[in-house]
Amino acid sequence: MTTPRSAASLLEVLRREKPLIHHLTNYVTMEFSANALLAVGASPLMAHAPEEISEIISIASALVLNIGTLDNDWVASMKLAIIEAKRKDLPVVLDPVGAGATRYRTRVALELLSEGGISVLRGNASEVLALAGQGGGGKGVDSLHAWSDAAGAARFLSQEFSCTVCVSGETDFITDGSREAKVYNGHSMMTQVTGMGCVATSLIGGFHGISNDAFLATVNAMALGGVCGELAAESATGPASFRMAWLDWLSRIEVQQFENKASYEQLRLLS
Amino acid sequence: MTTPRSAASLLEVLRREKPLIHHLTNYVTMEFSANALLAVGASPLMAHAPEEISEIISIASALVLNIGTLDNDWVASMKLAIIEAKRKDLPVVLDPVGAGATRYRTRVALELLSEGGISVLRGNASEVLALAGQGGGGKGVDSLHAWSDAAGAARFLSQEFSCTVCVSGETDFITDGSREAKVYNGHSMMTQVTGMGCVATSLIGGFHGISNDAFLATVNAMALGGVCGELAAESATGPASFRMAWLDWLSRIEVQQFENKASYEQLRLLS
Amino acid sequence: MTTPRSAASLLEVLRREKPLIHHLTNYVTMEFSANALLAVGASPLMAHAPEEISEIISIASALVLNIGTLDNDWVASMKLAIIEAKRKDLPVVLDPVGAGATRYRTRVALELLSEGGISVLRGNASEVLALAGQGGGGKGVDSLHAWSDAAGAARFLSQEFSCTVCVSGETDFITDGSREAKVYNGHSMMTQVTGMGCVATSLIGGFHGISNDAFLATVNAMALGGVCGELAAESATGPASFRMAWLDWLSRIEVQQFENKASYEQLRLLS
Repeated sequence: MTTPRSAASLLEVLRREKPLIHHLTNYVTMEFSANALLAVGASPLMAHAPEEISEIISIASALVLNIGTLDNDWVASMKLAIIEAKRKDLPVVLDPVGAGATRYRTRVALELLSEGGISVLRGNASEVLALAGQGGGGKGVDSLHAWSDAAGAARFLSQEFSCTVCVSGETDFITDGSREAKVYNGHSMMTQVTGMGCVATSLIGGFHGISNDAFLATVNAMALGGVCGELAAESATGPASFRMAWLDWLSRIEVQQFENKASYEQLRLLS
Repeated sequence: MTTPRSAASLLEVLRREKPLIHHLTNYVTMEFSANALLAVGASPLMAHAPEEISEIISIASALVLNIGTLDNDWVASMKLAIIEAKRKDLPVVLDPVGAGATRYRTRVALELLSEGGISVLRGNASEVLALAGQGGGGKGVDSLHAWSDAAGAARFLSQEFSCTVCVSGETDFITDGSREAKVYNGHSMMTQVTGMGCVATSLIGGFHGISNDAFLATVNAMALGGVCGELAAESATGPASFRMAWLDWLSRIEVQQFENKASYEQLRLLS
Repeated sequence: MTTPRSAASLLEVLRREKPLIHHLTNYVTMEFSANALLAVGASPLMAHAPEEISEIISIASALVLNIGTLDNDWVASMKLAIIEAKRKDLPVVLDPVGAGATRYRTRVALELLSEGGISVLRGNASEVLALAGQGGGGKGVDSLHAWSDAAGAARFLSQEFSCTVCVSGETDFITDGSREAKVYNGHSMMTQVTGMGCVATSLIGGFHGISNDAFLATVNAMALGGVCGELAAESATGPASFRMAWLDWLSRIEVQQFENKASYEQLRLLS
């Protein structure tokens, strides 16, 4: 575990340390998350059987939970994973896919947060608003709001659950209660590929696996995904060639190139 | 909900309205269906937990059911989804993957049809023959028959279950009892990519989500998939680059280009 | 069923006979396995419901089991599939993903092997060592060992369970107790794509579906995957374009081209 100062150096550490990132995630984007983590240099593992969660947590560097295709069996395994992660002091990242779209998803996401031990929560504006009890609901899993609508909700959730909250969108807003950042990188084609949000959450897990600083890990992950989106858009002729180029760039991008293109503002709050 | 006259104008409406299409589909092709619907302009949602089906149906524009990797839990959720869809008058599209290959699949597909409320049934010739009780079975999930072998079976099923039936293949045959169409678009490389049939069903769901006319929605979806197949084949060097180009074309194709390339015949029957 | 002499002629038979390969495999790589088998000319089928396993086994040419995202329900279906496969004398190929990483995976893989009837076991060195009781465990699903560390373990398992064992890695080592081979084909980019091991297992299933000779089927599958990896690397700019090119080459490669590029050594042992 190290906490380098710059985005670039954190990427270097990730590629060198190849952290194992345990996922309980949805059926739709499992493969995309696994390939993104391999591309960036991490080692993904998808497993949900209660019989093996404890052992996997003991060898993992971070845990990613994603409720995109949840059901009660998977939720039970996720709760077990949180308990084990807390015991081993493992970073946990939660993606509350579709919170606000159904009461079941809102309830489950809040139950997972209430277990304690969630280090980063990443959702779109609609999901974050819903979890803060301010939501009008999204349209299924897509957001109807901009980040700025959800900044207050993010700050509230950050306090309530003692975690970093990331509202992703055209601009990403990240707060941990004492620091806030806005990440400007990204490209509109990212909204045309299924699972870009889920994979962003997986990348946060990747960076968090090599840094205890949840805020810094989140900023870096969001910036890297966005920068690769900008690079991928240069060659893409549609969403599928964009997706391919994006994965290639996760693997190809040089540390200095990432440093040069990362565009974010950070603010240290008075506390 | 609108029912424009031409294929091209229906595609325009789809891209503008971005209908939410709820799926209970198989593990293998979930991601492909999701990306195809995003590419064409719709909004996919995959969810199977009984706790949330009713709420999702209430915000969705169409429901797609696909039994590619069925088991009893998923079938129970599908039946629940049909009941909710009927209550809300939501279009339902069924893909009876592998009907005829096993008695379990044939039985489940017929049970789902017997619930009532299925608006479109899309299968290959072997599947349609099996459901009409005329089948010799397919070879797993691939068809051993041409559309013409199954035209009578399609007409029978259309009457029996008051739905549009599409027999997909090199030529697609579509009947709703009072109208029939043949769609000639497509390319042989489509048979080398897993889930092209499943995704065709998802596209039908997409068009049906913005048009009450099940027959027209089906003709448009099959023509669009076929036209994009022809375009994709121009640049592909194998099935994977074909798949990528096909998804890109779903997103890139201009309305006029689709209109020019769509190749189908339609017949209004005396009733 | 035929057993041609050379790798090239076995590929010809595969493309001509299009064997149906039944899979009970993991959620992450199902689609990749399906597309790889279609590309090489086989016909994949993924199904796990106990209600239909017997019928599918009766029409399939081989069975592939993969415990990548196992749970007790799936394991029960796998055991049922083995019993049916033994009754019908169907070749069974097992991929013990993550054996050694958790006791659950090691135990399940050994239980499946103990059912008898497994014809080929393919894993990385860490998995093979773990199953032979010599393991220090892998890092999740990735191997920490080279093939040579696991050659003895492979020979032991081959005797113990009367099967062909393949230790895949930079060099692949294959033994059936009386013959041994090393396959040198492959490319380092293969380790950056999720599921390349799983898909290798599926390709073994494909070749085994048209040849009773498990050893020969395994050598051919590993060589073909490796040769296509070398060809794909020529055009790839990262892991995603590599994956696409690899699938395209599975479909495009000519029999003579495969013959020329395949690089392996074979030894007949005294028995």
